[in-house]
Amino acid sequence: MGVVIPFDEDGDSNGRQALEALRGLVDDDMTLVNEFILSRMYSPVRTIPELAGHLINSGGKRLRPMLTLAAVKMCGHTGDDRVKLAASVEFLHTATLLHDDVVDESDMRRGESTANIIWGNQASVLVGDFLLSRAFQLMVEIGSLKILDILSAAAGTIVEGEVLQLDRASDTSTTEDTYLKIITAKTATLFAAACQSAAVMAGRPAPEEEALESYGRNLGIAFQLVDDALDYSAKQATFGKTIGDDFREGKITLPVVLSFRRGNSAERDFWCRTMEEQQQTEDDLKQAVALMTRHDALSDTIERARHYGDIARDALAIFPDSHEKDCLLGIVDFCIQRAH
Amino acid sequence: MGVVIPFDEDGDSNGRQALEALRGLVDDDMTLVNEFILSRMYSPVRTIPELAGHLINSGGKRLRPMLTLAAVKMCGHTGDDRVKLAASVEFLHTATLLHDDVVDESDMRRGESTANIIWGNQASVLVGDFLLSRAFQLMVEIGSLKILDILSAAAGTIVEGEVLQLDRASDTSTTEDTYLKIITAKTATLFAAACQSAAVMAGRPAPEEEALESYGRNLGIAFQLVDDALDYSAKQATFGKTIGDDFREGKITLPVVLSFRRGNSAERDFWCRTMEEQQQTEDDLKQAVALMTRHDALSDTIERARHYGDIARDALAIFPDSHEKDCLLGIVDFCIQRAH
Repeated sequence: MGVVIPFDEDGDSNGRQALEALRGLVDDDMTLVNEFILSRMYSPVRTIPELAGHLINSGGKRLRPMLTLAAVKMCGHTGDDRVKLAASVEFLHTATLLHDDVVDESDMRRGESTANIIWGNQASVLVGDFLLSRAFQLMVEIGSLKILDILSAAAGTIVEGEVLQLDRASDTSTTEDTYLKIITAKTATLFAAACQSAAVMAGRPAPEEEALESYGRNLGIAFQLVDDALDYSAKQATFGKTIGDDFREGKITLPVVLSFRRGNSAERDFWCRTMEEQQQTEDDLKQAVALMTRHDALSDTIERARHYGDIARDALAIFPDSHEKDCLLGIVDFCIQRAH
Repeated sequence: MGVVIPFDEDGDSNGRQALEALRGLVDDDMTLVNEFILSRMYSPVRTIPELAGHLINSGGKRLRPMLTLAAVKMCGHTGDDRVKLAASVEFLHTATLLHDDVVDESDMRRGESTANIIWGNQASVLVGDFLLSRAFQLMVEIGSLKILDILSAAAGTIVEGEVLQLDRASDTSTTEDTYLKIITAKTATLFAAACQSAAVMAGRPAPEEEALESYGRNLGIAFQLVDDALDYSAKQATFGKTIGDDFREGKITLPVVLSFRRGNSAERDFWCRTMEEQQQTEDDLKQAVALMTRHDALSDTIERARHYGDIARDALAIFPDSHEKDCLLGIVDFCIQRAH
C-alpha cells in the first residue's frame, strides 16, 4: 500500500546527516532538557508522570526543543533559561499531542498505543492540561513577559487551528488556502514561536527576531506538508505510524485537496463517499493512493513543501555564517527528505 | 428523591441577601468584565465563540470573578487590570468546566445540555484549551509575574486534583483526608489564587495576601462540601442540576465517605456494589439517600462546611471594617446556605 515518493538518494542521506548535525550541536543541552522535563513532570498524583512519561519517552525526535536550543545558540545566548524555554516548548507540544489523540480518536502514535487507549480519554485530557499548565509555569520562571506573550498567543492559535480542522473535517471542498491556514496555525505557529522566543531570550534586535519567526513558521509548514504526504506513503511504516490514518479519519489534507480538485466527477464521488460520508471499503485506501498518483498529488505536495523550505532558508540569510546556522539550514533538508 | 438539609429559614434569607450585596458592590465592574469576556472569546473560527458562549452565558453565578473584584476593591485598587484579572479567573474556571464535563461524561449543567453533548467531546476539549490559553494571555497582559506565578501554579494544582479524583473514582475506601485534598486542589485553589492575586495587584503587604489566600481557600472548600451535599438533596432540582449525578458517576464525595465508614457490613456492600462495581438499580439512589440520612452524613457534611467557613471569616479579621469586607464575609453565609 502507498507509493514511494520520488526523492533522490543523495537527498535522503543529506537529510539524515543534517539531523545528526543538529543532534551533535545540542547534545549536552538536550541532556539537561531531558532531565529537566523528567523533574518537572513529576506529581505525587502517579497517573500524571506515568502517562506523560509514556508520551515523552516514546521516541519522538524532540525536534522542537532541539531547534529552540540551536536558535538560542546561534543568537549567542548561554543562560540557563534556555533549558526552561526548550522544555516549555516540548511540554506545550506534548500537551497538544495528547489532546489531539483524544480529538482524532487515534489508537497509535510512533508505533505505540496512544495514551488515550491505555489510560482513557479522561486521563489524556487532564494530563494534557497538566502539561499545558507546566509549560506556562516554566515560561513564568523564565521571567520574560515578551516570551510569555509569544508563547501564550501561540497556544491560542494552535487551538484555533485544531478547531478549524475539526470544523472542516471531511469537507472535500476545503481549499488549499484553508488547509494552509490550518497547518500554519496548528503546526507552524509553535515552530515560529519557539524560534522567535530564542531571539528574544538572547536580546537580539527585531529583524533577527522576525527572521527566526519566519524560519520557524515556514519550516513548520514544510514539515506538516511532508507529514501529510507521508500518511499515504509506503515509507510511513518505517516510523511505526499506520499508513492511511488521515484517510480513515476523513482528515482533509493537501493530497486529498489536490486530488479532489484535479479529479473527474466519478473521482470526486469517490472522495465524497470515503471522506464526507465515511463509507470506506477495504480497497479504498489503495484507490485513494492510485488517484493521488494519477494527479501527482503527493509529489506536488512535496513540491509545495520545498517552496516553504526555500523561504525558511532565505529567512536565515541575515545571520552571519556559523555552524549553528548550518545546522538550522540543514534541518530544512531533513524535514523535506525524511520520507527515507 | 433526596432529603431536605435542615437549614433555618433565616439563614436562607441571609445567604440570598449576601449574594445580592456582593452583586450590588461589583455590578458596574461586572458589566465591564462581561463585555471583556465576550470580546476576548471571539475567534474567526466560529465554533469557538459559539461553544464558549453557550457555557459562559448559561447562567452561572460568576461567583469567582465577583469575589475577585470585591477583594480588589477591599484592597483599594482601582486600575483597569482588575477587569482582566476577573475575566482571566472566569476563563480558567470555564475551561476546567468544559474539560470536567468531558471527563465526567456529564450531559447536563445548570439545567442545560452540556457542550460535549451538543458539539461533541472533541470541540469541548479544544475550546477548553482555547479558553485556557486566553486566560494566560490575559494574565500576560496584566503584566505581573507574581500574579502569573500564582495563577499558573493554580492551573496545575487544579488538574492534579482532577486526576487524583479520577484515580480515586469509585474507591469507597477513600479517606476524608484524601477527599479534602481533592476538593482543595480542584475547587478551593482557584478561589484562593483569585483572592490572593487581588491583594498582589493592589500591592498589599504579605499578611494581607496570605489572609485573602486563606479566605479564598477555606471558602472554596466550604463551597464544594455544600455542593457535594446538594447533589443528594431535593433542593438541587431548583438549580436545574440533576439529583444524584455524583452517585450515578460513582464519584466518591464526603456524604459517601461518611456513610461508608459509619455503615454496617451490609451497607458497605451496598456502596461497593453501587459505586465500585457501578451496578445500580432504580431504587438505589433512594437507598443511598436513606443511608446518608440514617448516619447524618449530609448534615455532617454541612457541619464540616461551616467549620471551613468560620476559618474563611476569621482570615479576613486583619482587614479594617468596610462594606467590601462585609460583602466578602456575607458570601461565606451564602455558600453554606445556598441549598435554599
